[in-house]
Amino acid sequence: MSHDSGFARLPAPPYYAVIFSSQRNGLDPAGYDAAAARLFDLVQEQPGFLGAESARDAGGFGITVAYFTDEAAIAAWREHTEHRAAREYGREHWYAQYQLRIARVERAYGGHPADAAPVAAVEEEA
Amino acid sequence: MSHDSGFARLPAPPYYAVIFSSQRNGLDPAGYDAAAARLFDLVQEQPGFLGAESARDAGGFGITVAYFTDEAAIAAWREHTEHRAAREYGREHWYAQYQLRIARVERAYGGHPADAAPVAAVEEEA
Repeated sequence: MSHDSGFARLPAPPYYAVIFSSQRNGLDPAGYDAAAARLFDLVQEQPGFLGAESARDAGGFGITVAYFTDEAAIAAWREHTEHRAAREYGREHWYAQYQLRIARVERAYGGHPADAAPVAAVEEEA
Repeated sequence: MSHDSGFARLPAPPYYAVIFSSQRNGLDPAGYDAAAARLFDLVQEQPGFLGAESARDAGGFGITVAYFTDEAAIAAWREHTEHRAAREYGREHWYAQYQLRIARVERAYGGHPADAAPVAAVEEEA
């Protein structure tokens, strides 16, 4: 992932989240890393893409959450030719199991704890 | 996390997701791990809790998604005395930054790629 920090900078809700959990099978790490980087670049160009966050633990279990303005943007990204090809390839070659959930984000809260601000006070700042 | 695989076993949508992204500050790993394990046990007893998935990368950026039946269950968990205390402590001691998003999960897809099943064919199996 070619972002500076792990956090996506998003507008105020509502917007949509694609929550992708996956267990890597450990095979083809170079191919997987290259495809992940390429898809991350591609999705930046997708109209309606807002940002993404991703973490994978040492055991190969990972969660990526990609954020979009609306369901139409998610559908368009799903139909993207190169994304579709990578998805079909990855399903057979890179993952032991995966789960995809589509959700409508209704509220967001956050903070830099160093500011000692109560969560409630920074609602909607995200 | 004391679950066998990383994947939560959830009913068919709709349900709610609490998406918590955080950057650990690297301090107090033993205290953090103990609190995380304790909270994971506690939330199992929370009415309306459905399951959770979590991953943290080597750089300390992590995503935990906890799933609940509805917003009332999320609100009750937020008000849980021990959860509240741990949250307030963690905000000051464990995290460099965090983000919390509440979302309504509308659709879910998944699969074991070894079955070579198209994603669309297993929709709602989650």
